[in-house]
Amino acid sequence: MTNNERKQATWIWYPGDFEVWLHREVCLRREERGNVYPPFYRLDSPYVSLKFQHIYTIAEAEEVTIAAQGRYNVMIDGRMVPSDTGKLLLPEGTHTFIVSVVNESGLPALFVQGSTIATDRSWNVASGNWSWVKPGSWKFHSAEEGPSLYRLSTMREEAAEITQKNDGSLLADFGKETFGYMQLHGLEGEGQVTLYYGESLEEALSESHCETFDRIAIAAGASPDYTHDKSKAFRYVNIVPEQGVAVGGVSMLYEYLPVEYRGRFRCSNERINRIYEVAAYTMHLTTREFFLDGIKRDRWVWSGDAYQSYLINYYLFFDEDVNRRTMIALRGKDPIDTHLNTILDYSFYWIIGLYDHYEYTGDLEFIRFIYPKMLGLLDFCRARANGNGMVEGKPGDWVFVDWADISKEGELSFQQVLFCRSLIVAAGFARMFEDAERAEQLEREAAALRGLMFDTFWDDEQGGFVHNRVNGQVQLHMTKYASMFALLLGFLDDAQRQSVARKVLMNDRVQKITTPYMRFYELAALCEIGEQAHVLSEMESYWGGMLDLGATSFWEVYDPEVKGNAQYAMSGRPFAKSLCHAWGAGPVFLLGKYYMGIKPLEAGYARFVIEPKLGGLTWFEGTVPANKDDIHVYMDERKITVRTGASPGLLRLTSSTEPSCPSAAFRELGQNRYELPLDTPNSEYVIAYVNAENER
Amino acid sequence: MTNNERKQATWIWYPGDFEVWLHREVCLRREERGNVYPPFYRLDSPYVSLKFQHIYTIAEAEEVTIAAQGRYNVMIDGRMVPSDTGKLLLPEGTHTFIVSVVNESGLPALFVQGSTIATDRSWNVASGNWSWVKPGSWKFHSAEEGPSLYRLSTMREEAAEITQKNDGSLLADFGKETFGYMQLHGLEGEGQVTLYYGESLEEALSESHCETFDRIAIAAGASPDYTHDKSKAFRYVNIVPEQGVAVGGVSMLYEYLPVEYRGRFRCSNERINRIYEVAAYTMHLTTREFFLDGIKRDRWVWSGDAYQSYLINYYLFFDEDVNRRTMIALRGKDPIDTHLNTILDYSFYWIIGLYDHYEYTGDLEFIRFIYPKMLGLLDFCRARANGNGMVEGKPGDWVFVDWADISKEGELSFQQVLFCRSLIVAAGFARMFEDAERAEQLEREAAALRGLMFDTFWDDEQGGFVHNRVNGQVQLHMTKYASMFALLLGFLDDAQRQSVARKVLMNDRVQKITTPYMRFYELAALCEIGEQAHVLSEMESYWGGMLDLGATSFWEVYDPEVKGNAQYAMSGRPFAKSLCHAWGAGPVFLLGKYYMGIKPLEAGYARFVIEPKLGGLTWFEGTVPANKDDIHVYMDERKITVRTGASPGLLRLTSSTEPSCPSAAFRELGQNRYELPLDTPNSEYVIAYVNAENER
Repeated sequence: MTNNERKQATWIWYPGDFEVWLHREVCLRREERGNVYPPFYRLDSPYVSLKFQHIYTIAEAEEVTIAAQGRYNVMIDGRMVPSDTGKLLLPEGTHTFIVSVVNESGLPALFVQGSTIATDRSWNVASGNWSWVKPGSWKFHSAEEGPSLYRLSTMREEAAEITQKNDGSLLADFGKETFGYMQLHGLEGEGQVTLYYGESLEEALSESHCETFDRIAIAAGASPDYTHDKSKAFRYVNIVPEQGVAVGGVSMLYEYLPVEYRGRFRCSNERINRIYEVAAYTMHLTTREFFLDGIKRDRWVWSGDAYQSYLINYYLFFDEDVNRRTMIALRGKDPIDTHLNTILDYSFYWIIGLYDHYEYTGDLEFIRFIYPKMLGLLDFCRARANGNGMVEGKPGDWVFVDWADISKEGELSFQQVLFCRSLIVAAGFARMFEDAERAEQLEREAAALRGLMFDTFWDDEQGGFVHNRVNGQVQLHMTKYASMFALLLGFLDDAQRQSVARKVLMNDRVQKITTPYMRFYELAALCEIGEQAHVLSEMESYWGGMLDLGATSFWEVYDPEVKGNAQYAMSGRPFAKSLCHAWGAGPVFLLGKYYMGIKPLEAGYARFVIEPKLGGLTWFEGTVPANKDDIHVYMDERKITVRTGASPGLLRLTSSTEPSCPSAAFRELGQNRYELPLDTPNSEYVIAYVNAENER
Repeated sequence: MTNNERKQATWIWYPGDFEVWLHREVCLRREERGNVYPPFYRLDSPYVSLKFQHIYTIAEAEEVTIAAQGRYNVMIDGRMVPSDTGKLLLPEGTHTFIVSVVNESGLPALFVQGSTIATDRSWNVASGNWSWVKPGSWKFHSAEEGPSLYRLSTMREEAAEITQKNDGSLLADFGKETFGYMQLHGLEGEGQVTLYYGESLEEALSESHCETFDRIAIAAGASPDYTHDKSKAFRYVNIVPEQGVAVGGVSMLYEYLPVEYRGRFRCSNERINRIYEVAAYTMHLTTREFFLDGIKRDRWVWSGDAYQSYLINYYLFFDEDVNRRTMIALRGKDPIDTHLNTILDYSFYWIIGLYDHYEYTGDLEFIRFIYPKMLGLLDFCRARANGNGMVEGKPGDWVFVDWADISKEGELSFQQVLFCRSLIVAAGFARMFEDAERAEQLEREAAALRGLMFDTFWDDEQGGFVHNRVNGQVQLHMTKYASMFALLLGFLDDAQRQSVARKVLMNDRVQKITTPYMRFYELAALCEIGEQAHVLSEMESYWGGMLDLGATSFWEVYDPEVKGNAQYAMSGRPFAKSLCHAWGAGPVFLLGKYYMGIKPLEAGYARFVIEPKLGGLTWFEGTVPANKDDIHVYMDERKITVRTGASPGLLRLTSSTEPSCPSAAFRELGQNRYELPLDTPNSEYVIAYVNAENER
């Protein structure tokens, strides 16, 4: 430092351990009817004992203040020096300054502030054995506010309607699905108050079967206002005071991750507009410390659910932090002794998700950090492949695929598609990091598996992949899973894509998908081959069907065949089904990627492409967050308007006449396809064209 | 259960996690002048979230009480049931009862007590993924006293002498090295009292350089009696109240592991008797939750120090628990990313120590438990061998060997001896567990390394192993380490043994050893070839030298050349040297194994052998704990008396006339050697013979 400005310190810790610690905290907040409900997969802990090292050179002795999460000591050049006052005079010259921090229950972290010496990412940290690495840090820049005080934001919200009953109980309806800390007001007397939460009215009123409740003891002479210290998911709260205590009113502290809705979408179809809005809100509710699956139950971080959330996030918030936090937390610590969340498919989603993250964000630093962890996980998967080089469920593995009545036996074609893509993704990173020998090995394995996958499971007659092979016997039964993922992940040629679309995905005789989770991929695959118009009507009927049942956020499972309160049941419990589930938010992604048609051409949106498509709409307009830029697009049957940011891109469209743009020149691609370079930064392009979608 | 007796429950936890948790607690108790001093190697934590499972069948519903260390929930047949009262009615019939326990800061553990259903080692536990294993348990049989309340025993001790000075300070001398919690009495007034601890008088009086102190704030009106909550090592305590506060008296709570001195030794040489007594006390002080290196500094668990403690333990307490606790704690959790304590040699000691533990205790259950962990550590070591198949210090490894001025560069012959022995030990266990392929592989590697070791380092002219090879260049410098370990660990033939004894160990021109740590092995090696008389005089001068300097426990380092207070210095600090160090207690082992001459012939002392040797003494008598038995032996120049326990054994002796025993018949072995079967359980054998040791 040559200037006299005070350098701002930041809290530092072992890289990845903030996420590991926070993941442990968050996962243990799940409750079922008053009981803690820990995950059945391993929860990791941060390292207990760290050394933070900084080799400095200063011309004059400098006083620093030290704050630590945990007990600590200080050594200068290997000698312990007193540090119990939290202040220390660092001697002039060049010295090795080491602070050891130990914390058995939380996250060891350090904050040192001097005028020129301050903790930051240039320091070193070791969890043992003097193996120095660069520390983790985030946005904690004050000694008083260490990372363990990290909380989401809150704001007070009033109930939309409060009904007081004769027995003194209150029923609060917050008007829509929400999440936060209940507040009681006008408390009088002494006794117990029970809060029965419901995502549905029926759940809140079912004292014996609602999934969550809280019991509060109100002491005599207590404050009339009370805020609960645990946050819950609900729309309705049934507040039941026992005799001797009265509740005058209620409100809540809404708890949320402060992210911005950078993605937007409006169109000529009001039902689709409402679907987009509810999907975006669903996503906001489940985008928290990490991507949760659902906010009522499980409130856990599941890799398959998270994979879909990453994709939706790119089209809504573009919040890279929550992606990274989720990926680090899911991977956890070594040793890997099970698949992520114990689920075979979920290990693969994690690896494949890293590719998307790099494509959309271009965050090479993160990929470099996570690369060895990715190899560790992939090696675990590879070591569990069978003699044919295929993966299948081994003892202790959960083969999930979907909540559906399907076989999990033997080699599933679906799992091979994900495994093969994981090998390809890993090989790509290996090439990027000049890890050539490994890249070649992984490429060989991927090619072999790809061949085997087609030889074994592709059924020309049925036009897609059959479901599985058991004890060497290929089963003739076909499901949609492998075929739609093979299409999405680039394993199919044109003829195969068309075959999958017609004979598998749009074939009523193939087993229907009843989770928004897998409908997401099914519809994305159809969009990939231009079936937006079909997908639009599917969105209207499927997601719209939930709206018709009063949904204010989208559900974990929706089966139009199931009627009445039976819609709320799951796992043998009448209200177990989650009515706010991240994987319900798929339309945000579908509309952003396949209607607005925006995606990166080079990592981190260094270049982008727009291929907008009305897909049955008369017009739409919206914004897609493209890393630092926001790209705006308007489209109707005669006009397209694009507003770009700093990065260049391409517009590709189909027009039955030659399109025109005053500010740039189109290039003809043949078959009514045209391409317009969007090279001028921060510009608006107004294009005249004639929509040709119905000509297809 | 067919009877009506109430089954006694015991606390259960994930196997090994009590030791991992306790190790973390103990290691973090080290302080240096008021500052916490965590180890620089990784400290592991127990699993955070466990499931305990019990599949039961009962004819009538049964009430159980549940106690847990941590938050918990209960599921019966996969359904959560209320458990917040700590009482639960288990339904009749056959059911799967699962209690999930979560604890972020301590040890998750469970205690369930019914009349027929009670937690014990027959339950299952999983740290994730429903991978059930048998739980750990120990001696915690009451709901109120869970494993986290485990403390060593304490008893009040008075100071031998208290000197009050004019300034109000007190100097307490407890008469000998001790360990515990200081107590102050007759407190009056208000202010700070500082306790300066000293293993020596000089240290206690050096307020600015003593290694440990405690500052206590006495509040006005506080109780006149105060017990400190942290235990320390000391003989002297300098108690300095500031103005306004007065201390009337002091005492201490001596803290100790309640073990029995089963081993005993008395002989004609009073200096040796005192050495045995002080060595035994040294061992008692350092035998605690685990084997500590030293009780003042480091108070940590070091594998090399522990290895020697295991050996001494077999001849003193025969406390298997502390061995097991120490071995489990040292091994820690996966992944292994450094050597144990980061020290190359210390990984090998751990493996070799398992062999001795099996030989002495016969505890196959423990070996079976630890076997996979041993293979994991050995694989780590094997993967770090260089292209020649030899180990050498790699970045991050500490190559320790001894506190001595020796080269640590390149391939050290000493490390290859330990590595080779580790391979042999592991191969032996692999054979025992019918892991034949692995056994063969390890045997091949051991044979190759053994050959290489002799080809590379054995120097016929110098008569032993040279120290090391650097960059392919064998160095001619010879130290004692490799040679004495090769002798002890069975790598040498008779000629080589004699050569090592004369040309290396008893050769004044070879670099002297100045730690009791390595003197232990040096003298044991000499005893192996019958040099007990020489060893006796070495013990007298070396350990006796410490006694002459006032030692009441034996030291970490003793160099007779160093004079005065300089004896207390280490690492550049005037009082850093430990004056009570486990590795100072070696004479207990030497006298038990090589004078009383008792050791197991079959694992767990199923058969034993006694080869008593006066080794320069006129007579001795003593006891060696031999697993369940105590074997007593008396020997003078004409008579030997042996009292046996339940197990049979053999007596072998040298006598210049044919020995006789009224109750059994001798067999002649040639060269004045005779053997007597000791087959009658719990018998006394009185043998007449004529000592022939001086004829050798």
